[in-house]
Amino acid sequence: MSEKMTIILFSGEFDKALAAFTLATTAAASGMDVTIFFTFWGLNLLKKSEFSLSKTQLLMQKMLNFMNRGLPLSRLNMLGLGPWMMRKLMKKTKMASLEDLMKTARALKVKYIACTTSCGVMGLGREQLADTVDDFTGAATYLAIARDSKINLFI
Amino acid sequence: MSEKMTIILFSGEFDKALAAFTLATTAAASGMDVTIFFTFWGLNLLKKSEFSLSKTQLLMQKMLNFMNRGLPLSRLNMLGLGPWMMRKLMKKTKMASLEDLMKTARALKVKYIACTTSCGVMGLGREQLADTVDDFTGAATYLAIARDSKINLFI
Amino acid sequence: MSEKMTIILFSGEFDKALAAFTLATTAAASGMDVTIFFTFWGLNLLKKSEFSLSKTQLLMQKMLNFMNRGLPLSRLNMLGLGPWMMRKLMKKTKMASLEDLMKTARALKVKYIACTTSCGVMGLGREQLADTVDDFTGAATYLAIARDSKINLFI
Repeated sequence: MSEKMTIILFSGEFDKALAAFTLATTAAASGMDVTIFFTFWGLNLLKKSEFSLSKTQLLMQKMLNFMNRGLPLSRLNMLGLGPWMMRKLMKKTKMASLEDLMKTARALKVKYIACTTSCGVMGLGREQLADTVDDFTGAATYLAIARDSKINLFI
Repeated sequence: MSEKMTIILFSGEFDKALAAFTLATTAAASGMDVTIFFTFWGLNLLKKSEFSLSKTQLLMQKMLNFMNRGLPLSRLNMLGLGPWMMRKLMKKTKMASLEDLMKTARALKVKYIACTTSCGVMGLGREQLADTVDDFTGAATYLAIARDSKINLFI
Repeated sequence: MSEKMTIILFSGEFDKALAAFTLATTAAASGMDVTIFFTFWGLNLLKKSEFSLSKTQLLMQKMLNFMNRGLPLSRLNMLGLGPWMMRKLMKKTKMASLEDLMKTARALKVKYIACTTSCGVMGLGREQLADTVDDFTGAATYLAIARDSKINLFI
């Protein structure tokens, strides 16, 4: 059985997502079994569109999803200038983009789990999230996997 | 002997505290031995009152404790509107509140350790912190427990 | 063989760096093999000067390095007043300063690795970083060490 790495992706920040997917793809490429458990703002990485509104959402959930768009930087965000600069720099220095890393992650069978508790609070269902989500579960499933993982990170 | 999970709760943010206590209570409910090591802003979760001033505090410690109140969101805090909305949404979607999770954690014997180094800098003693604190110790104690833990997280 | 602890230091914040180096020095003092993998804003801890500009940097990298100076607090930064107060308080309460902790870390042979991917994006080379860096490598090297570590943290 392969060694496991499990990442809780709590943050919806561009730079932290880059770190998470760089680690996930590198680990998967070296033969590890990698799971990413997307929770809270981390679910932003899985939203189909930036808005992800649905008819069944409460008004407050609609407001939350309206405001909770995009992937800021955890530092020097400067109203969006920071992430734009970072993307430019990554292109100029020929680094893989976040979108490329996420495609590679799927190609290497990195498992995506969406946290049902967070989805419940934010009013997000299967329709609002990408088809790449393998599973919708809660903390108990995370713990069962993390228990057997050599590397556990909260990002 | 039960498997262990150890969480360093460094952050004093409402959303991260929710994640920490959801994981802690779920792990403890499934029979794991869970320890939370509260350090820096994480100590806010243990303060008896929001102010926690004491006569022996230095002026700067009083200022720090006066400013360092409440539990903001790590994102979309909007001067406190964010946490208020999140609490409303959690109630509407029938999720356990942070206070409920913390009560459950204690009922399930999740161990609380307060970091003495942080307490020293911030001028916090036993009188300022909740009676639920099991122990006041430093990094060495954390490491001794974390070494034998299946899951270690820094939140 | 000694037990290992491996820390990814992603954050360039003063308070989180304090936590990382307190853990690293305490672990190393108790005989553990400690590695810190500096990535993204965490590289700020290794910059020779606050500016770290070089002739080979792209204009945008110069801008990024110009803006990305100093070590703010993750909370209550207050345009730099927060870190200044924290440093004052640490001195008054006779805590080791961040600089002291970093010196101790080196004396106790804590290994420093700088992430080549982040260095590439930010335009940082050996000349811009402190001589204390043991190695310049990527995520694969981190994973090889972390796999055998008893404690893995992302800070």
